[in-house]
Amino acid sequence: MQVVKNSVAAHTSPLVSFFRKVVFGKPLASSAALQHRLPIGLALPVFASDAISSVAYSTQEILIVLAGVSLAGGGAALGLQIWISIAIAVLVVIVATSYRRAVILYPTSGGSYTVTKHNLGAFMGLIAAAALLIDYIMTVAVSICSGVDALVSAYPRLLSDKVEIALLLVALLTLANLRGTKESGWTFALPMYAFVTLAGIMIVTGVTHFILAGGHVQAMGVNPHLPAHLRLPGGLILPKAGATLGLFFLLRAFANGCSAMTGTEAVSNGVSAFKPPESKHAAQILLLMGGILVFNIIGIGFITHIYHVVPSETETVLSMAARATFGIGVPYYLLQYATLAILMVAANTSFADFPRLMAFVARDDFAPKAFTRLGDRLVFHRGILALALISAAVIVVFKANVTKLIGLYSIGVFLCFTLSQLGMARKIGSMREKGWRGGVILNLVGATVTGLVAVVVAVSKFTEGAWMVLVLIPIIIAVCYLIKRHYEWFERTMTVHPEDFNPLAEPAEPVTVLVLVSSDIHRGILEGLECGRALADGKPGSVLRAVHIEMDPEKTDRLKAKWAQFVEPHLDRQIALDIVPSPYRWLTEPLLEYLDLIDLERTHDRIVVVLPEFETGNPLTHFLHNFTARRLRTVLLNRPNITVVSSRFFMKPMAWRLGRGGLVY
Amino acid sequence: MQVVKNSVAAHTSPLVSFFRKVVFGKPLASSAALQHRLPIGLALPVFASDAISSVAYSTQEILIVLAGVSLAGGGAALGLQIWISIAIAVLVVIVATSYRRAVILYPTSGGSYTVTKHNLGAFMGLIAAAALLIDYIMTVAVSICSGVDALVSAYPRLLSDKVEIALLLVALLTLANLRGTKESGWTFALPMYAFVTLAGIMIVTGVTHFILAGGHVQAMGVNPHLPAHLRLPGGLILPKAGATLGLFFLLRAFANGCSAMTGTEAVSNGVSAFKPPESKHAAQILLLMGGILVFNIIGIGFITHIYHVVPSETETVLSMAARATFGIGVPYYLLQYATLAILMVAANTSFADFPRLMAFVARDDFAPKAFTRLGDRLVFHRGILALALISAAVIVVFKANVTKLIGLYSIGVFLCFTLSQLGMARKIGSMREKGWRGGVILNLVGATVTGLVAVVVAVSKFTEGAWMVLVLIPIIIAVCYLIKRHYEWFERTMTVHPEDFNPLAEPAEPVTVLVLVSSDIHRGILEGLECGRALADGKPGSVLRAVHIEMDPEKTDRLKAKWAQFVEPHLDRQIALDIVPSPYRWLTEPLLEYLDLIDLERTHDRIVVVLPEFETGNPLTHFLHNFTARRLRTVLLNRPNITVVSSRFFMKPMAWRLGRGGLVY
Repeated sequence: MQVVKNSVAAHTSPLVSFFRKVVFGKPLASSAALQHRLPIGLALPVFASDAISSVAYSTQEILIVLAGVSLAGGGAALGLQIWISIAIAVLVVIVATSYRRAVILYPTSGGSYTVTKHNLGAFMGLIAAAALLIDYIMTVAVSICSGVDALVSAYPRLLSDKVEIALLLVALLTLANLRGTKESGWTFALPMYAFVTLAGIMIVTGVTHFILAGGHVQAMGVNPHLPAHLRLPGGLILPKAGATLGLFFLLRAFANGCSAMTGTEAVSNGVSAFKPPESKHAAQILLLMGGILVFNIIGIGFITHIYHVVPSETETVLSMAARATFGIGVPYYLLQYATLAILMVAANTSFADFPRLMAFVARDDFAPKAFTRLGDRLVFHRGILALALISAAVIVVFKANVTKLIGLYSIGVFLCFTLSQLGMARKIGSMREKGWRGGVILNLVGATVTGLVAVVVAVSKFTEGAWMVLVLIPIIIAVCYLIKRHYEWFERTMTVHPEDFNPLAEPAEPVTVLVLVSSDIHRGILEGLECGRALADGKPGSVLRAVHIEMDPEKTDRLKAKWAQFVEPHLDRQIALDIVPSPYRWLTEPLLEYLDLIDLERTHDRIVVVLPEFETGNPLTHFLHNFTARRLRTVLLNRPNITVVSSRFFMKPMAWRLGRGGLVY
Repeated sequence: MQVVKNSVAAHTSPLVSFFRKVVFGKPLASSAALQHRLPIGLALPVFASDAISSVAYSTQEILIVLAGVSLAGGGAALGLQIWISIAIAVLVVIVATSYRRAVILYPTSGGSYTVTKHNLGAFMGLIAAAALLIDYIMTVAVSICSGVDALVSAYPRLLSDKVEIALLLVALLTLANLRGTKESGWTFALPMYAFVTLAGIMIVTGVTHFILAGGHVQAMGVNPHLPAHLRLPGGLILPKAGATLGLFFLLRAFANGCSAMTGTEAVSNGVSAFKPPESKHAAQILLLMGGILVFNIIGIGFITHIYHVVPSETETVLSMAARATFGIGVPYYLLQYATLAILMVAANTSFADFPRLMAFVARDDFAPKAFTRLGDRLVFHRGILALALISAAVIVVFKANVTKLIGLYSIGVFLCFTLSQLGMARKIGSMREKGWRGGVILNLVGATVTGLVAVVVAVSKFTEGAWMVLVLIPIIIAVCYLIKRHYEWFERTMTVHPEDFNPLAEPAEPVTVLVLVSSDIHRGILEGLECGRALADGKPGSVLRAVHIEMDPEKTDRLKAKWAQFVEPHLDRQIALDIVPSPYRWLTEPLLEYLDLIDLERTHDRIVVVLPEFETGNPLTHFLHNFTARRLRTVLLNRPNITVVSSRFFMKPMAWRLGRGGLVY
């Protein structure tokens, strides 16, 4: 019987099986992995919508900084945002170009972590990984909360339920991702194309208005949807007293805008999900993405500028821009829904990448091995669940406030841009292929620019939350090294050497079997005695004993009588019944002390404790019985030199087969 | 080795042991139970303060009904409360007198449940028990919330934190009770005597003022402590539109006042906690309690009457009465603290009685057996925890609002008064001792009165919450009978008959031992193989096999090579290594199918599955390893015809001994 045939449904109860299929889809065999890779039309939404969606909030976060300054004094500040947008677009082009090389040279994926690790060492690689992991979490939090903002802009009644809606969306994404990549691809392609189209129409419409009106359009009105009490000036972001448009504010506005960049990293990190030839497709996607991004940042920046949009706490800038351009009607609502949808897709990017990066890090022993295991839908389900839980916690802690979340965002990604481009420069320099000098210069320029941006972001957002990231990264790295150290110790300790096998040649040890007996001898105990006999009888040198922990001395005499009358006469040899008193009605302490005594008597035998359990066959009735067996098992498992045997008496066939097939665990 | 000596601390880690002692106190041997019974000076606070404390809210709940009516039309309604108070006092005397007999006749405790069950049958007994259990839960909820109201009356700033404070107090009581009765007695004696003394002083002072002023005192002012926005009329309980003082409102006011009665039941239910002679002491306590109660109800009713106290949502009536009498000063604050304290003691009464009643019901198989087990501090700790959790949930659901909680309160206790007095009448009638006719008449009168009150309470509070109690009682009874049925089935199925022992005389079965092998042969696997050999080798007819679930086919060749090179040459006989493919990377399904095949081959042997586990020795590193062994164990334990053996390899001595001594479980 070397190979056993395997069919899917045989052992799963119909109910569990049905539930699994509806929620997670059919299980996928390992050989299906290749077919699940993505064509370019699907890969663009999955990998680029993170970057593209960020225009939904980056323009706004620039304006929030500039608006405060502007109202306080610097009159033309709002106009500066177009120049900031252009600067960001240039940055995208630089990073995208330099990343194209990384994608081609490291087609087997792993992104910045792999590039940095291979060229700058494991420590630098971990810095990149920690920075990226934080940024993936922030991407989920920021995107989801910004999507909720888009929804709430259209329906201000929902303002008080933002956190709940955000958590619901996280749960939806988690389920979708536990189902697997293919479905994600198709489900999320439409929103991106819808958003890009609608935003494009909005920009073109706005610019056309502007040209037709001879360069003068009317300024925004207040959102007529908004309840009256929210129309007060309090609803607008108020300027800090006495703020002027210094370099610091300009840099902070720029840093906020840089949140558009996080998505760029996503592509190179997810190359293994593309259809072959992977690197060519990935490079195409980077180019497409850069183009769309530049058009949108500048376009939306221009629209908000010509309509004099002022950021508010109750409505997004994009919603205001759309209201100004379209008026409140079908196109406006469509754009809000498309914004929510593409931001969901953006969050979904992290759901594709976070688990993958965790798996890469875990493969190097820097994270729990469990993250390397593919679930039965071919996804790293543990990574997906970890990301869902952490980002949900972040959303709750920051009360779904995008402006507060953005403070922690995008510092990580620039840190790892810098590291991976330095790594690339080193790599290209060492390869000395044709045109290597140009490649090194390109990457060094990229590294310098992103490094400068990382410093700008860290400094300008330091008090807004960036400090938390700077504190977290070293902590994460320390934990990674501790985990690595543990695995190394584990490997050293557990690895067997040829001489370790020698004992197998010796005769097997005799066993001392102890059967635990309750105050009443019921069928479960009888089964336990049978089990003990099967393990001990017929073996030379083996011993069988029964042990009773006397928690209620009144019942001991009856037990002794029953034992003498029914058990002893039937056995071919006498089994000792040891009574262990327990004056404090404790269960485990006296047993452990008894085992200590047995240990003292022990020579070269193996001590086997048989725990007689019973199973009522109905989970609903479990709470009606003492969980003594479970408790004893847990305690005994933590005691060295004991082999624990669970012998179960089944009172009737199990009605439910909970836990089969691994769903419940 | 028939008896093993037992010392307490040997097996508990110092840290756990210290924690246990500080929080729960030293463990108590069973022989200490008698010494822990209560003298009368301690028994009065523990068993009567429930009743006495109810004056803190019953007067108020009468006024809330009457005040609404009064403001709406019926001018003299407030004056009626004195008469209602007198009616309630008379009711206390009737019930207390009739209960004196029950306490004397049923000194071994069990209260209404035992009395009713013995004389009217198990079904009626369960009605009494269900009604009482609900009332105990409501006692905790109402008393704690009323205590919080007393605190909040003195410190209106805490108004918004009522629920949190209430939950904190429940947690405190739970801890105190897990420590045991003795501490409760001493800790809670002072508050009752303080409250009775201070309330007495207040009543005497108020009456003296009244007499000195010639029957006219000034009406209450607004609480000067209250923040300005709460001083509006909205803070007062507003009348329902058009309400007039009909019989219905009079009855509802009376029903609200009857909450003072719940504590009376407590005494007879807790007789076993008194010092012998138990019944004499219990009867004394009933008399003392009745006297104090009558004095306070009438006294406080009179004070609120002469000062024209109008109930408010932000201050208790007792607080207003104290302000009127004492002014805001030391006596006022002392009374508020004493009120909080005695209400804590009242809630504590339920903590003494609920677990005890649960134990009585569980002893009759109507509730989970676990409730009959005394913990190591000689308390029914499971009952205490159950009460704490349920009452905390009730407090949260009802947002700590006494007026809403009171709607569910006191209907249960009158139901069980009626049942137990009917039971008593039957008992005394059947005994025909001297004076039995008088006893029967007394109890029948008591039953009629309390039965009428039960109807009044149920009808007048029906829409305020009493309907929930009337729905819950039959549900609880149905569950009780289902539990009983399960235990009866369990008894039938598990009881052994002499012929069941016959198999023990036969030779023991041979064993088929299956050792689960991972893709790498490490020391844990080696230990598992050793264990399998110890169980199978040397026994005639026994078989040993190794099984590998192939989740990653790439590793199989290495495993086979290692097996052929290292394992096979050392064994005295060849062990088959079965490879079970798992295309969906499932762990449990393929194993279960393999076991199905083994089952088909099987004849009269016992199938033993050895799960090789390893223990890293540090709980912090557990999350770094797959929990496959734990998962497999759970699944295999749910499969009949399998004996599960857990063989653990200990990588280093356990640093922590968590779970020893039963604290953690």
